[in-house]
Amino acid sequence: MNDEHFRSIWQTEDGSVQAIDQRRLPFEFEVVTLTSSADVCAAIADMTVRGAGLIGAAAAYGMYLGAVEARGLGQPMHHLQRVADQLVATRPTAVNLTWAVQRMHAALAAASPGADLPAVAAAEAARIADADVAACRLIGEHGLPLLTEAFERSGRPVNVLTHCNAGWLAFVDVGTATAPIYAAHDAGLPVHVWVDETRPRNQGARLTAWELGQHGVPHTVVTDNAGGHLMQQGLVDMVIVGTDRTTGSGDVANKIGTYLKALAAADNDVPFYVAAPSSSIDWSLASGAGVTIEERDALEVTHVQGRADDGVTEVQVAPTGSAAANFGFDVTPARLVTALITERGRCAASAAGLRGLFPDLAPPA
Amino acid sequence: MNDEHFRSIWQTEDGSVQAIDQRRLPFEFEVVTLTSSADVCAAIADMTVRGAGLIGAAAAYGMYLGAVEARGLGQPMHHLQRVADQLVATRPTAVNLTWAVQRMHAALAAASPGADLPAVAAAEAARIADADVAACRLIGEHGLPLLTEAFERSGRPVNVLTHCNAGWLAFVDVGTATAPIYAAHDAGLPVHVWVDETRPRNQGARLTAWELGQHGVPHTVVTDNAGGHLMQQGLVDMVIVGTDRTTGSGDVANKIGTYLKALAAADNDVPFYVAAPSSSIDWSLASGAGVTIEERDALEVTHVQGRADDGVTEVQVAPTGSAAANFGFDVTPARLVTALITERGRCAASAAGLRGLFPDLAPPA
Repeated sequence: MNDEHFRSIWQTEDGSVQAIDQRRLPFEFEVVTLTSSADVCAAIADMTVRGAGLIGAAAAYGMYLGAVEARGLGQPMHHLQRVADQLVATRPTAVNLTWAVQRMHAALAAASPGADLPAVAAAEAARIADADVAACRLIGEHGLPLLTEAFERSGRPVNVLTHCNAGWLAFVDVGTATAPIYAAHDAGLPVHVWVDETRPRNQGARLTAWELGQHGVPHTVVTDNAGGHLMQQGLVDMVIVGTDRTTGSGDVANKIGTYLKALAAADNDVPFYVAAPSSSIDWSLASGAGVTIEERDALEVTHVQGRADDGVTEVQVAPTGSAAANFGFDVTPARLVTALITERGRCAASAAGLRGLFPDLAPPA
Repeated sequence: MNDEHFRSIWQTEDGSVQAIDQRRLPFEFEVVTLTSSADVCAAIADMTVRGAGLIGAAAAYGMYLGAVEARGLGQPMHHLQRVADQLVATRPTAVNLTWAVQRMHAALAAASPGADLPAVAAAEAARIADADVAACRLIGEHGLPLLTEAFERSGRPVNVLTHCNAGWLAFVDVGTATAPIYAAHDAGLPVHVWVDETRPRNQGARLTAWELGQHGVPHTVVTDNAGGHLMQQGLVDMVIVGTDRTTGSGDVANKIGTYLKALAAADNDVPFYVAAPSSSIDWSLASGAGVTIEERDALEVTHVQGRADDGVTEVQVAPTGSAAANFGFDVTPARLVTALITERGRCAASAAGLRGLFPDLAPPA
């Protein structure tokens, strides 16, 4: 970001939690300070912070702020349980949220009597954030050969299509779907990204395009309707997307519209990869049919936010009186996923594939 | 329209040509007067008038205005040939444009020496417009049983998904994809329409939703990303879309994104119908690969038009400096089309199917 390195969320030396306000990008770069667990809940719910990994990390810092609030209370874990419940309730689909809150809760519950809970929480939240960054870097390493091989096959820039934003803004740093792209670009491999704009909130056009532009990666914004045509025309070498919840069977709940791109990839023999850190895996689900799909405000569909002459504003795009529905995610069945790219390597999108990489995490067969 | 019946284009008693300005809907209802063939060319190019059938009818009226301009010229057909070329060059994908201009040119060229060419042209343009309306009504009749059967099977409102606008605004009246919907609604059948917003120009959210609302048809606007999820959830009984160019083999060039919905329909056993008047059939093409796909201004992708507090305006949705691409159409292969609904009935999307209904138009086998 203008040659200064930012994470999407961080803790300052005085203990306060700061994050980039993603509702204003790419038009305004603003940092918000979150001073209470309620602040964090609101920031996740209104999408000041969004993205699978980031809302996990934000929830971890929310638990830290909860621990600060519980200081001096007779039964601090009562307050922390309430904070945990509130954080988990903010958004239903991404599993990282639950995962991070449970991990924080376990660390706090395991602290010895009289321990400095805020210090315990700050340390665990930092570990979660650092692990997120490490996992993203490893996904980049494990994804890079896919781009290298594509370049060696064609001898021309590798065209990657991505949907929504699974970039560093969606995680703590680096991102998942973008990690192999950044790794390839940084290695000098010519890469070009087709960026789905990703209605209704346009995280592709707004956030992914901005990220790639800041990093100097060539990219072209297209409407969500365009990907099928691009693939029919041979203009896409691979699709790489993120995931908000990966089932133990390899089904992938991700931003609404992902499934349509997976269908087009299958129909055109384009590899379809999902960058899936283990924090996104819900081992309790054997099928995507069990994923709760968030429904959001219809106003996100009937209106579009963007920059006008007088600043960031909203325009109405549907007639007054027309109803609108706003499903946030869809499920791409494992059969349409060429491979998952995890922090431990690539695997088939299947129970066997996931178990092979994560025998320590997978439930008994 | 507020209980007054409008066509999308018409000729007034004094001979001038008027049309609804579709760039302002649904926020402002304005009628523009087209007084020269150049006016008509500009109106088609800037999408004041748009839609497969309507740009055909508009071009016919453009040829009429050309005939008025040629009055008194020594060789009026020279001017009319130039007008024909200019009209055909305005937009490349929809075949109705070429079809209507050729039909007008043939009628004018066949007129006896000394004939009143404007009168010949006005009569032929009126025939083209009336034939468009008649074909749309027949498509409604031939499509209606599909909705009736769906209702009889399920006993609940029939959910139709449509993409872009193939409604009365896209034709002279009635529309194609909407014709079976209007026929069902008018027959008292409960019908609900999922309206794809259809980025980049949002003809679904803006025009189809407005049309359906004016007619009292229940509908819900969704993003272009949502249709796959809706079909997975069993919320779509059938898809009905229009076509800008149907090949003799049944491939369908229609608004970008149509192909993605056809893939989702096939994957979920949802019937995918294309309302295809014979004026949309390009008998010269045996494959959709031969269709010229229009590329339009990238600004339609990087910006979105809508209503703000101070009127209809545009907001920027992608970062300054990010490139954008804007393909207007894609090709849905015939294998994904359940049936074509034509003015002569329904048929398989295949050379044999089309030949069976149109033996008089199809080229020799």
